[in-house]
Amino acid sequence: MSGTESKTARAMVIEAYNEPLAEREIRIPELREGEVLVRLLAAGVCGSDVHMWMGEDPRNRLPMIPGHEGVGVIEDMTSPLSDIAGKPLLPGARVIWDRGMPCGECWYCAVLKDPSLCPNRWAYGIAKPCSEFPYLNGCYASHIILRRNTKILSLDGMPDVDPAVLVSASCSGATTAKAFDLARPNVGDTVVIQGPGPLGVYGTDLARLSGAANIVVIGATPARMEMCRAMGATLLLDRKATTREERRRAVLDLTGGRGADLVLETAGTRDGIDEGLDLVRRGGTYLAPGVAVPIGTIEVDWFRQVSSRNIRIQGSWVSDTTHLVRAVSLVTSRPEEYGRLVTHRFPLTQAMEALRTVQRHESVKTVLVSPE
Amino acid sequence: MSGTESKTARAMVIEAYNEPLAEREIRIPELREGEVLVRLLAAGVCGSDVHMWMGEDPRNRLPMIPGHEGVGVIEDMTSPLSDIAGKPLLPGARVIWDRGMPCGECWYCAVLKDPSLCPNRWAYGIAKPCSEFPYLNGCYASHIILRRNTKILSLDGMPDVDPAVLVSASCSGATTAKAFDLARPNVGDTVVIQGPGPLGVYGTDLARLSGAANIVVIGATPARMEMCRAMGATLLLDRKATTREERRRAVLDLTGGRGADLVLETAGTRDGIDEGLDLVRRGGTYLAPGVAVPIGTIEVDWFRQVSSRNIRIQGSWVSDTTHLVRAVSLVTSRPEEYGRLVTHRFPLTQAMEALRTVQRHESVKTVLVSPE
Amino acid sequence: MSGTESKTARAMVIEAYNEPLAEREIRIPELREGEVLVRLLAAGVCGSDVHMWMGEDPRNRLPMIPGHEGVGVIEDMTSPLSDIAGKPLLPGARVIWDRGMPCGECWYCAVLKDPSLCPNRWAYGIAKPCSEFPYLNGCYASHIILRRNTKILSLDGMPDVDPAVLVSASCSGATTAKAFDLARPNVGDTVVIQGPGPLGVYGTDLARLSGAANIVVIGATPARMEMCRAMGATLLLDRKATTREERRRAVLDLTGGRGADLVLETAGTRDGIDEGLDLVRRGGTYLAPGVAVPIGTIEVDWFRQVSSRNIRIQGSWVSDTTHLVRAVSLVTSRPEEYGRLVTHRFPLTQAMEALRTVQRHESVKTVLVSPE
Amino acid sequence: MSGTESKTARAMVIEAYNEPLAEREIRIPELREGEVLVRLLAAGVCGSDVHMWMGEDPRNRLPMIPGHEGVGVIEDMTSPLSDIAGKPLLPGARVIWDRGMPCGECWYCAVLKDPSLCPNRWAYGIAKPCSEFPYLNGCYASHIILRRNTKILSLDGMPDVDPAVLVSASCSGATTAKAFDLARPNVGDTVVIQGPGPLGVYGTDLARLSGAANIVVIGATPARMEMCRAMGATLLLDRKATTREERRRAVLDLTGGRGADLVLETAGTRDGIDEGLDLVRRGGTYLAPGVAVPIGTIEVDWFRQVSSRNIRIQGSWVSDTTHLVRAVSLVTSRPEEYGRLVTHRFPLTQAMEALRTVQRHESVKTVLVSPE
Repeated sequence: MSGTESKTARAMVIEAYNEPLAEREIRIPELREGEVLVRLLAAGVCGSDVHMWMGEDPRNRLPMIPGHEGVGVIEDMTSPLSDIAGKPLLPGARVIWDRGMPCGECWYCAVLKDPSLCPNRWAYGIAKPCSEFPYLNGCYASHIILRRNTKILSLDGMPDVDPAVLVSASCSGATTAKAFDLARPNVGDTVVIQGPGPLGVYGTDLARLSGAANIVVIGATPARMEMCRAMGATLLLDRKATTREERRRAVLDLTGGRGADLVLETAGTRDGIDEGLDLVRRGGTYLAPGVAVPIGTIEVDWFRQVSSRNIRIQGSWVSDTTHLVRAVSLVTSRPEEYGRLVTHRFPLTQAMEALRTVQRHESVKTVLVSPE
Repeated sequence: MSGTESKTARAMVIEAYNEPLAEREIRIPELREGEVLVRLLAAGVCGSDVHMWMGEDPRNRLPMIPGHEGVGVIEDMTSPLSDIAGKPLLPGARVIWDRGMPCGECWYCAVLKDPSLCPNRWAYGIAKPCSEFPYLNGCYASHIILRRNTKILSLDGMPDVDPAVLVSASCSGATTAKAFDLARPNVGDTVVIQGPGPLGVYGTDLARLSGAANIVVIGATPARMEMCRAMGATLLLDRKATTREERRRAVLDLTGGRGADLVLETAGTRDGIDEGLDLVRRGGTYLAPGVAVPIGTIEVDWFRQVSSRNIRIQGSWVSDTTHLVRAVSLVTSRPEEYGRLVTHRFPLTQAMEALRTVQRHESVKTVLVSPE
Repeated sequence: MSGTESKTARAMVIEAYNEPLAEREIRIPELREGEVLVRLLAAGVCGSDVHMWMGEDPRNRLPMIPGHEGVGVIEDMTSPLSDIAGKPLLPGARVIWDRGMPCGECWYCAVLKDPSLCPNRWAYGIAKPCSEFPYLNGCYASHIILRRNTKILSLDGMPDVDPAVLVSASCSGATTAKAFDLARPNVGDTVVIQGPGPLGVYGTDLARLSGAANIVVIGATPARMEMCRAMGATLLLDRKATTREERRRAVLDLTGGRGADLVLETAGTRDGIDEGLDLVRRGGTYLAPGVAVPIGTIEVDWFRQVSSRNIRIQGSWVSDTTHLVRAVSLVTSRPEEYGRLVTHRFPLTQAMEALRTVQRHESVKTVLVSPE
Repeated sequence: MSGTESKTARAMVIEAYNEPLAEREIRIPELREGEVLVRLLAAGVCGSDVHMWMGEDPRNRLPMIPGHEGVGVIEDMTSPLSDIAGKPLLPGARVIWDRGMPCGECWYCAVLKDPSLCPNRWAYGIAKPCSEFPYLNGCYASHIILRRNTKILSLDGMPDVDPAVLVSASCSGATTAKAFDLARPNVGDTVVIQGPGPLGVYGTDLARLSGAANIVVIGATPARMEMCRAMGATLLLDRKATTREERRRAVLDLTGGRGADLVLETAGTRDGIDEGLDLVRRGGTYLAPGVAVPIGTIEVDWFRQVSSRNIRIQGSWVSDTTHLVRAVSLVTSRPEEYGRLVTHRFPLTQAMEALRTVQRHESVKTVLVSPE
């Protein structure tokens, strides 16, 4: 990078938990072999960012730049690289990347080939303080430095999609795609989705793309329910306007009394899990990517809910590059529908306000955006 | 059935191969336990009916009523029955049914649970002469008698779809759904479909409902290609206007040089198979439900086409009830798109003319229709 | 059957719950089409028989002949039949059969092809009173009448195995094989088996036949543990001589700290389930065929035990013909090892004493045997 | 490594095709970050080494050290490393490693998670000349330098197995395990293995560890057939003493006339493939890891052999770390049976003689051994 020795990036930094993010200038260091400097166009604000800011995530070390969801433009690199699809990566290319950095060498990576479960996996915007070289380790910033072996996907040649819309593919989209990788409905199936947040909207699209004949969404916020309808939901059940028994009856009526082939848990609540287990048909699956923080214990009536109904309960945790690619495929196929998810946009410097919209559950998806 | 002793059905009968079908009146016999008398609303004319009429199918015994694709209305039954979904079947109900009758007791049925491969399986309109009780054994007729244990699906409560449009679900739709049961693409995949006939149109829809990002259809008839486009094809390659190498280049360009994740063979030609094998990426699948009659031998360069590219070649033969249900789900979800398949309609008595449109490849789907 | 009009069978009948079984003579009726009269050589006494005798199984109607596990010799039939493998069934043939009678026509049977979950499924020795034609509906008897469509497997041509040893294949063997059908370990995997009863012994063999490198059995009865060792267990953990933490440590030590790839629950206790969930590695499976009666609720720490470790909990309920065939293959391959399971044998008339050995947990497998 | 500046290794080098291997001293260079110096205890001589020596493998560049199968002892490393199971790697540890080096970054590695098909994959002893740093790139040597990111498995803590016996796990063992990863038999299945070489012996063991009830081996060399019998084969069919029709009849007789559930092709001949396809039952699988070099074209009667019998033909190419681990698990479980494979041992300096035993098909497995 010629003439960048003195160049700096701006970043919004957590220096103390529960205190306003600090706007800082950070010197962009010289890139090491394989590293890529990306100027961010959009950075998603995730619910887990709020937990980090409140000091509830033991993976954090301060000071840190939050933000694990990003889309940007390559500004510099030390040597020619290709993206995971084999496309040359050059300055100017728009890119998205896998937020997770598995080690590639352990039992999970090399033998089980499930890098999402790698015990050495770390994620941008979560695990590395900005005191650690190369400093620009999160997306609440003007720039991020992607380390060697980051799985980068070039967006060149794909349909042109607003970076703010695409950004959720790297977290909620990939997370939902991972869950469907573990348990995929079949053509004609009935799928219930508990919770119309970002995971639920992606889940609706993935259920549709599995050929589900019935996609039932249970939720409480009309605007979110409508996003699911636009995405393909065939029945919306308002959690406030119906009783649990009425919802169960509605699912049984759709399925000849059998229950849903698959129930997707995307709300992360104990009540929801208890209700959801009873909506699964004998031999069906309860697919659970929705719980990301401790929620206490669930009382499971093992004989009635698990054994005698031959049910599968499938936990799902984070995602890998496979799922990022699938989520990007989803968003680029239906940019308008996914665009509705982005209810709030802020410039980088208003990251604190952005975080508040998520903390107060005012937004579906809040994104920090930078002018191109 | 009160007062039906003297009732008769009309049927179009093959009495001699290659001779015009004979219009015959057939007495409707008294139903045995479990049998269901159905008045036909639509009977599909399948390419294999032409082979039967020409005496090329060793399963036939004359005289016979052809027609293995039917949709109709229940007119009579001996005792209360339910359909496979548990819905009560009553006179007046519209129904479709699995054309195949596996034995339910053999190794394939009971141990491998793959009734489509049951060696004792027989099909309506193919295996039973109309001299065998209960005579009404095919769909080129005003009525058919479904035997005990026929897998019947009630259409009541489903979206109201023209029977002529729905009828192909029971043969080409189910056959394609069976193939996808053996090898299903993933979200973001590239699928190539060789041949835009009914199997190819269903295959396009099933590829879409697997989340395929690219669906490439290779064919020669513009009208058929357009049906695939309406169904979700993203690239049409005209077999007459392009060379084999150009088509291969187009598929490689879409896939970063890798080739298609899945190639679906629905044309049934030797040239097509040779071309198609070379379009599959390393580790991909060549899925082949398209060959229904002997076509001679294919020269396979085993090292180059199979071993070193780690390819799966998957033959697929007929279907079972699972696949009928999925195909019905497809058609009822998109009746307009499937409606375009039905290019020719004839009354029952013009079955010979109908057969000619198939023999001459004039139609996509020809259907015999009866007034309700 | 010439001259059988006056022939009678002997049976041990539950006429009142918790009362001694009554020895009764029952007239053998004339067989209907497709029925097969079998003289029993061995009838297994299952733990669930005790629950039935105590009136705890709502499926029962009195008077009834218990016994759902049987091996016998065909004595009569009305017409030539073949077994599921296509072998002719003739009087004199030794047979075993699927204890379950699914309907073959419902959504579970015809569409999902999972007859073990058929809501209309009934089982010999459980669902039909001996007041219902053809009366001989259970295995605690000299004879049983197998109804039309019973899935019969001829033992002719197989290695000659003691019927008393083979009999458990039809219940605990098939049940365990069904579970492994839902989740199968891989070569080199570590499997933990909780509970060295019949399910645990079959599970040990199936784990071995999956190539598991480590098969850890947790139990309390030395003799049962030794049966598992003979079957292939590589580490026995005595539940009384070790703490829960010591057992966890032992499993972690075997697996580089990861935990077991698969934990098989065959004890049916709440404590066991809680312990077992913690033994599964991230991304692993908790496979649960062991709970057959209500055991109350289990407190599941959803985040820690399910979500963040990406675990699959798979309930498993009964079995179908596929699994009977596999279980028979297991026993005929290793008759000596399976022979050790049969710790108690009684003549039919001492069925009450036999039941007591199961009630008091004195036996591993108790069998009622008849002279050939 | 203190004081190694002047240390040298000995290697047997191909300097010109078809000329005797040259014994050369090669200076051991200073290790780079992540590299591991291994003193070889055993190096397998593979059939493909003969092809390389004859100049038939386009991947080779001269001068080169052949040998892609090795077991050795760590002699030096630059920094602490762990093996893929998380065990610390220290000088003195015995190790085996994945011979293949996929890139970890491409579509095959990162998205399809199938590194065996990585287009950038290279293998020790095949792809790198000994003129390329760090020179010691093959196993026909006293030492090899494993590059950063090589997937190493420590043998410490495993049963002590002769390195000469273990060495084939890294090539023929892993290759066969990969094939079974693509298509795995079930308990009670019938498996036919065409060709009792190393792949066939591993295949026999893997078929046994899938619970196959019948394992039929077709071959011509009695000593090799006996190795398969020791491994678990239940029927040996001598290709010279039987006709093709007799062999087909034998397989049909074992399977109620159905044919084999899985046929494993490990002979690599055109005649064998043609025969083998006809031995597969309807719906079964022809699994083909055996063809490693061009063998010309096979005439496939598509309708009869593929479509109407609904057969799967599965090519299989090389392997990855998953399969190495499984193969090591196989060998360490049955060292005696695998020991029989090693029919010829030579010191390193007699590598040319060793190669001749393979070229002349005199050996099953030839190994170069070094004193510990």
